[in-house]
Amino acid sequence: MPSNPSQAIASRLDAIRGELANANLDAFIIPRADEYLGEYVPEHNERLLWATGFTGSAGMAIVLRDKAAIFTDGRYTVQVRLQVDANLFSYESLTDTPQIEWLCDTLPAHSRVGFDARLHTLAWFENAKATLAKAHIELVNVEQNPIDKHWQDRPALSSAPILLFSNDSAGKTSQQKRTEIGALVKKAGADVALIAAPDSYCWLLNIRGNDVPRFPVVLGSALLHANGDMQLFTDLTKLPEGIEAHVGTGVSFKAETSLADTLASLKGVKLLADPNSANAWSQNIAREAGALLIAGIDPVSLPKAQKNAAELAGMRACHIRDGVAVSRFLAWLDNEVAAKRLHDEATLADKLESFRLEDPQYREPSFDTISAAGPNAAMCHYNHNNGTPALMAMDSIYLVDSGAQYLDGTTDVTRTIAIGKVTDEQKKMVTLVLKGHIALDQARFPKGTTGQQLDAFARQYLWQHGFDYDHGTGHGVGHFLSVHEGPQRIGKNINAVQLLPGMVLSNEPGYYRADCFGIRLENLVVVQPCEALKGAEREIYEFDALTLIPMDSRLIDKTLLTQEEVTWFNAYHQKVFNTLSPLMSGDELAWLTQATRAI
Amino acid sequence: MPSNPSQAIASRLDAIRGELANANLDAFIIPRADEYLGEYVPEHNERLLWATGFTGSAGMAIVLRDKAAIFTDGRYTVQVRLQVDANLFSYESLTDTPQIEWLCDTLPAHSRVGFDARLHTLAWFENAKATLAKAHIELVNVEQNPIDKHWQDRPALSSAPILLFSNDSAGKTSQQKRTEIGALVKKAGADVALIAAPDSYCWLLNIRGNDVPRFPVVLGSALLHANGDMQLFTDLTKLPEGIEAHVGTGVSFKAETSLADTLASLKGVKLLADPNSANAWSQNIAREAGALLIAGIDPVSLPKAQKNAAELAGMRACHIRDGVAVSRFLAWLDNEVAAKRLHDEATLADKLESFRLEDPQYREPSFDTISAAGPNAAMCHYNHNNGTPALMAMDSIYLVDSGAQYLDGTTDVTRTIAIGKVTDEQKKMVTLVLKGHIALDQARFPKGTTGQQLDAFARQYLWQHGFDYDHGTGHGVGHFLSVHEGPQRIGKNINAVQLLPGMVLSNEPGYYRADCFGIRLENLVVVQPCEALKGAEREIYEFDALTLIPMDSRLIDKTLLTQEEVTWFNAYHQKVFNTLSPLMSGDELAWLTQATRAI
Repeated sequence: MPSNPSQAIASRLDAIRGELANANLDAFIIPRADEYLGEYVPEHNERLLWATGFTGSAGMAIVLRDKAAIFTDGRYTVQVRLQVDANLFSYESLTDTPQIEWLCDTLPAHSRVGFDARLHTLAWFENAKATLAKAHIELVNVEQNPIDKHWQDRPALSSAPILLFSNDSAGKTSQQKRTEIGALVKKAGADVALIAAPDSYCWLLNIRGNDVPRFPVVLGSALLHANGDMQLFTDLTKLPEGIEAHVGTGVSFKAETSLADTLASLKGVKLLADPNSANAWSQNIAREAGALLIAGIDPVSLPKAQKNAAELAGMRACHIRDGVAVSRFLAWLDNEVAAKRLHDEATLADKLESFRLEDPQYREPSFDTISAAGPNAAMCHYNHNNGTPALMAMDSIYLVDSGAQYLDGTTDVTRTIAIGKVTDEQKKMVTLVLKGHIALDQARFPKGTTGQQLDAFARQYLWQHGFDYDHGTGHGVGHFLSVHEGPQRIGKNINAVQLLPGMVLSNEPGYYRADCFGIRLENLVVVQPCEALKGAEREIYEFDALTLIPMDSRLIDKTLLTQEEVTWFNAYHQKVFNTLSPLMSGDELAWLTQATRAI
Repeated sequence: MPSNPSQAIASRLDAIRGELANANLDAFIIPRADEYLGEYVPEHNERLLWATGFTGSAGMAIVLRDKAAIFTDGRYTVQVRLQVDANLFSYESLTDTPQIEWLCDTLPAHSRVGFDARLHTLAWFENAKATLAKAHIELVNVEQNPIDKHWQDRPALSSAPILLFSNDSAGKTSQQKRTEIGALVKKAGADVALIAAPDSYCWLLNIRGNDVPRFPVVLGSALLHANGDMQLFTDLTKLPEGIEAHVGTGVSFKAETSLADTLASLKGVKLLADPNSANAWSQNIAREAGALLIAGIDPVSLPKAQKNAAELAGMRACHIRDGVAVSRFLAWLDNEVAAKRLHDEATLADKLESFRLEDPQYREPSFDTISAAGPNAAMCHYNHNNGTPALMAMDSIYLVDSGAQYLDGTTDVTRTIAIGKVTDEQKKMVTLVLKGHIALDQARFPKGTTGQQLDAFARQYLWQHGFDYDHGTGHGVGHFLSVHEGPQRIGKNINAVQLLPGMVLSNEPGYYRADCFGIRLENLVVVQPCEALKGAEREIYEFDALTLIPMDSRLIDKTLLTQEEVTWFNAYHQKVFNTLSPLMSGDELAWLTQATRAI
């Protein structure tokens, strides 16, 4: 590999273009996603990085015979220019320049565009194919990805063994789950369901893995039959002893390489698959073999989202330990600030993780920590590893959004911390965000309500003052699984999924003033029947906060709070103190005591 | 016609069944809608009434060779049994028993179901056809409706002339509007748009009519070309002198009977039509003739919803006069109650209209007045004409939901009035509804926000106490046009239409306790840029109330209101007093003075 990175990329582009010529293609599409279509991609599958040098978490490249373009979003405007050579790629907007329309505008009629059907959803494929067809351009699946062919020194895939997740922690055996979800497959009119999402088949089998950073799953794919029988296609060397007994009867394990043949044997079978989450490759093979595709949501997603008592017990338990770890970090941070010892964002993130690492049940972060000092926090998806980590400054706000994967659950919390003195304007903005956080936390709502209906509760005070934030208010969270889990969410966009008891969501309104500061106050909450309204005219649900970590009262302007809001704030802190104080001691307990004092 | 109503219906069913036999049909579908698919149907087109005797505002009948069914919703459970003979029809639920699935279950394969394509939307037709096809049942359009063939003594259609609506009141000439909307037709990729909604073509031509009760339009249909040229298909005897000059160049008037031929001449033409609001008959004719149907929302609906300054001036002016009329009624009502003179619901509705009738610009109610005493108000769509109007009782709540069509605008208001003493529980419920009304009225929201996002503001206090209401919170309102106008709305259901300046909506949360009482507090509001937040970070909108009529403070429990809510209530009443008092005098002014006193 040439030592000059641009030269390396140039020769990789040459290799791709050679394959284009061989296959009589005019373009090749390189998404950031891999064949599992998840949020995190193992190094082994970082094809966009290999082809462009770009390390961001979202993007797409399109290589033509004589030019290439890289599409990234607003988060990466600066970074892409640092990492990707302008002589090799033009920079395009991922959001403002629809890639397929760009192809229609760029290529002449009768062009042939190559793509790897493993790396795109069926919905993307159908849409892209139809759009390109209007411009008389053909979308052509490549049998082997040209990148895979030419990737020297490709990082190995993980060989970590599958972890057997205890039935006690899961609350149900795999057999019970498979029987229940199998019935849903039947109800959807199907014989078999393609369970493509790794967290879905891991949940179904009560297993976890270590193949992807941040996301404790084993890679593969699965088929679930209406009778509850299941086939898992994965690396068979990862099967631990006793897995057959653990998952129960009716489960067979097959090499991942045999998936294509199995899909091709489904002639006449009614196959339920989610066109928005499963890859086009698998559904196209089944369809071409004569399977009848039934498009529908992954049947695991809704039951998985409604945590049972055992899962909730794990979530509650890990949130207490996580509360202690994060509180110890905040105590340490206050102490450092008092001593005028200023650290950079990476050091702060590492220090935070050091407290979590003391927990034997801790595995890894549930996502890349956002450790953002001062103006960097105004970028709501800031990553200090995308440049030089900044040093925190006195008289600023520090925002830290982090989470953990524990063996008994997943956490995600954001706190915004005063570093020295803060301005009245900053206090006002934090308080408006807090008011929204409280309004959503305190919402009661009838059965049938969606997160979309509640979203404005969190924004209303910002709106009253002419402000808003450009991200969702809440996402679902898995149980020692994905920290971003569907199908429920709280946001402005259309989402028809009802909030149901046992669903865990984040409550994370924020505010971002470009080049100045950023604020986000995030707790995880669980939906539960409203205790106080048992027997009311309507069946009413409420949220209960799982996250138990002090919010920085030095950032609150009490005059902007109603008496009810002050009561909420103090009651929350009292609960935090009561829960965490038995687990803390010394200076850290002293810190907790003052941090949770009533305002 | 036989004197026994059941006998009359029986012989009509015989006539329909004779036509079924002639046409080799096994069923005929009779919707309540007519060929214009509007909310109100002229007597001439009350085919469901002719065939069944049912006078309700929603329903469907299906006549089979040997039996018949009538489908009605929860509002008409009692009424349908009084009006429709159980020996002739079975009673089915309009909402719980999908009519097409009922047909699939009832008829054997290879049956033929007749329908009149003029009376159904294209969307209904496509769906019904596909569903029936699965059961191997054919959906067959009848050339002539069998009811029309056999309807003796059919009421005549209106012959009222078209009213030329002044360009000053409209704010734009027809020419201007047609040019603007024509550009939208082009933007939608079409050559011509089918403008099927009577309020859409009347708005485009600055005309009104008197063909339908409650809905001041002329019946017909129209085609709008991308260049702004337009053809109106209507009863040519209704054209008033000077209409050509009024509508400007490019408009031609044709007999409604020539519509079919014109549609059949559109071979190769790209025709924009709204499959959810235009009838299947017109779109099928065009499609069969080789027109390319482009499915899209009626291009008039969104511009029509955003009232311009002249339209808003009319809306504001008529709301002031309407405020005086309704206030005079409320003053009279209080006086009657004080004198222990109790009236029935019909008398009250007539009395209310008598005050509006004094206004020379008043034309008719904008919908059938809901005048509901005591427990009747718990039925949120109650109509006292569907049975014997009830007498109001002392120590109860009276609900009156009414509106007016004025030459300069349309109104719609609901007030809930204490008749004697009311209970603390009733006060609590009225106050919870009021708090929701205030929260929605006071909402500020960024550009891009939909009514669906705001709906929960109006419900939140009811939810907090375990209550809710089962209707939308707000509908659009036309300018001397339909009192129920799209495309925007405020409600729980998915609606992606942004609220934009100039849109008029109702704000009408309510609460209904079955067999006890009903509450609704409704004002019309207009969306406008938020004055106080000019230059804010986000473009923020707010509502301004058009309706200026006292709310009954005897029903309010002030202890449940925040200081801000009390301030809102008093400021609203101050504004009502300031605006209406110069137009009232004597005892009525005295009533207004005390009714708008600060609480």
